[in-house]
Amino acid sequence: MLKEYKVAVVGATGVVGHEILEILAERNFPISELVPLASERSAGSTIEFKGEDIKVQLLTENSFDNIDLALFSAGGSVSAKFAPIAASKGVTVVDNTSHFRMDPKVPLVVPEVNPKDLKKHNGIIANPNCSTAQMVLPLKVIKDMCGIKRIVVSTYQSVSGAGKEAMDELMNQSTQLLNGKKIEPKKFPKQIAFNVLPHIDIFLDSGYTKEEMKMVEETKKILGDDKIKVTATTVRVPVFISHSESVNVETIKPFDLEEIKKAFAEFPGIKVMDDPKNLVYPTPIDSAGQDATLVGRIRRDISCENGIEMFVVADNLRKGAALNAVQIAERLVLDGLL
Amino acid sequence: MLKEYKVAVVGATGVVGHEILEILAERNFPISELVPLASERSAGSTIEFKGEDIKVQLLTENSFDNIDLALFSAGGSVSAKFAPIAASKGVTVVDNTSHFRMDPKVPLVVPEVNPKDLKKHNGIIANPNCSTAQMVLPLKVIKDMCGIKRIVVSTYQSVSGAGKEAMDELMNQSTQLLNGKKIEPKKFPKQIAFNVLPHIDIFLDSGYTKEEMKMVEETKKILGDDKIKVTATTVRVPVFISHSESVNVETIKPFDLEEIKKAFAEFPGIKVMDDPKNLVYPTPIDSAGQDATLVGRIRRDISCENGIEMFVVADNLRKGAALNAVQIAERLVLDGLL
Repeated sequence: MLKEYKVAVVGATGVVGHEILEILAERNFPISELVPLASERSAGSTIEFKGEDIKVQLLTENSFDNIDLALFSAGGSVSAKFAPIAASKGVTVVDNTSHFRMDPKVPLVVPEVNPKDLKKHNGIIANPNCSTAQMVLPLKVIKDMCGIKRIVVSTYQSVSGAGKEAMDELMNQSTQLLNGKKIEPKKFPKQIAFNVLPHIDIFLDSGYTKEEMKMVEETKKILGDDKIKVTATTVRVPVFISHSESVNVETIKPFDLEEIKKAFAEFPGIKVMDDPKNLVYPTPIDSAGQDATLVGRIRRDISCENGIEMFVVADNLRKGAALNAVQIAERLVLDGLL
Repeated sequence: MLKEYKVAVVGATGVVGHEILEILAERNFPISELVPLASERSAGSTIEFKGEDIKVQLLTENSFDNIDLALFSAGGSVSAKFAPIAASKGVTVVDNTSHFRMDPKVPLVVPEVNPKDLKKHNGIIANPNCSTAQMVLPLKVIKDMCGIKRIVVSTYQSVSGAGKEAMDELMNQSTQLLNGKKIEPKKFPKQIAFNVLPHIDIFLDSGYTKEEMKMVEETKKILGDDKIKVTATTVRVPVFISHSESVNVETIKPFDLEEIKKAFAEFPGIKVMDDPKNLVYPTPIDSAGQDATLVGRIRRDISCENGIEMFVVADNLRKGAALNAVQIAERLVLDGLL
């Protein structure tokens, strides 16, 4: 009989937490007991898992006794405090926050790309930033085929990346504006309905945002190549679910574009949608609720000797967060690491 | 006394035509008579100009007798047929369509950037594509200070670039979706509300769209430098007015970023909005109805030796179309070319 695991979900009532529960059920992850955990604000409420109502427990230092696997998605400060406690009790932690991602002792993993990094884990494994996770799938293909010199990416990120309240804000602002009413931004710093904001996470002294630097640094770590140059501009758009990315890649060696497309199609986790003359190209609406990362608008860059342009779209709650976390857990099981 | 001109506006009832009339009035262009022209569909209706109702006349080959200046904004095929007729009658044509833009005998002008090209005109002057017009302002500054090697641009273009029906479609789709109703795309190939479409104008065999190639080719022509490499990805976003652009520029020579910012601020037509830590950065909402091209998120690109990242936002109906056309006319007057 297959082994089953006691699984804790920290932040079970949030947007990503909810998605983790759904994906654990959907993919039939072998669970003997599910323990949803949350802060005081949400503890005591119930969540549904496989048709059963389960009471959400208060997250404390004692929450992790007898737990095998804990999926964290309750913010950086919660992970900073509780993930090491869980790990010290022998729990394997998959952390969805940015807190441990660049820690050299913590593997940062997209299972299709760098599964071997899991072997080096010391109790905590980091799940990448949403905008990085989807991009590294086609980048891994390109890197293996012809090497990557430099990446210039601009994003079109949905509001669900900023949580439930952000989704409500887009809905409410849109309704109010369509009814000729004034709006007052709360969750976002400026109007998000019918607007775009070149501002995700905080601004650093360099002029980049923290979100942009996550894409720069995490991409290098996941692809295992510090020499790859990356620059990013991350932009919030009035879309509910799924991030889109305009990705420009300068390669080291020449390539055959048809071979790249073929390799994309064969790579696990990628779905090529690339027949633009027949209106086949990815958009957020195509991607929401899907596991695959959609890649389209694939073309030879006319501005450099060896370059590829592409448009990469994925459900930020799935591949960008919950799905990748569960895939990490599945891979740990498969490799006998859990 | 200042000379006054008989001015025809072809396509006077369209979104851009309407904006041209407003800007001609706003800037007090010296007009002795205004002649609004349109196709059969709209001829006979009235437009307002400086508080007066003026009847829209049917566009025919005889519409241009005694006209000094004609501003065309009624689609490429209308310009293709009627602009040469007008020019042959001694009318100076400022054409807002793409039809003549790459014609070597036709100057393509952004008055702040290449006003001298007007001197070479043979009756027809082309107004650039909206997404190009705004971008070349900061690019001109960069080119003059340190030369440009390569540009990678991704756009966030509003629906007004596709006309009135497109604006209605965004409004109607948004309302329907917020009320839980199904939508059926008409003007756009796919759902535009709460979605983004990497598709503007038709697809070419290269995989680029015509809109993208306009940005590539027009940028070189306006900046007067064929050696500049450009690649573009143009994307429609659910915004009513103003295009945003994430522009990455590799320069030929090193630069001082503060000097670039200072030169932006001093350049006519640019307004720098660049104090991100205090939430000063441009968005479409800031730009709609404004003449200035807003430039922000200006930072040193960390992915190449000499590079600049910036976010450029402008009202696509103004700087991207009507305003630039009227500015061309003003410049013609100023230089004694009309």
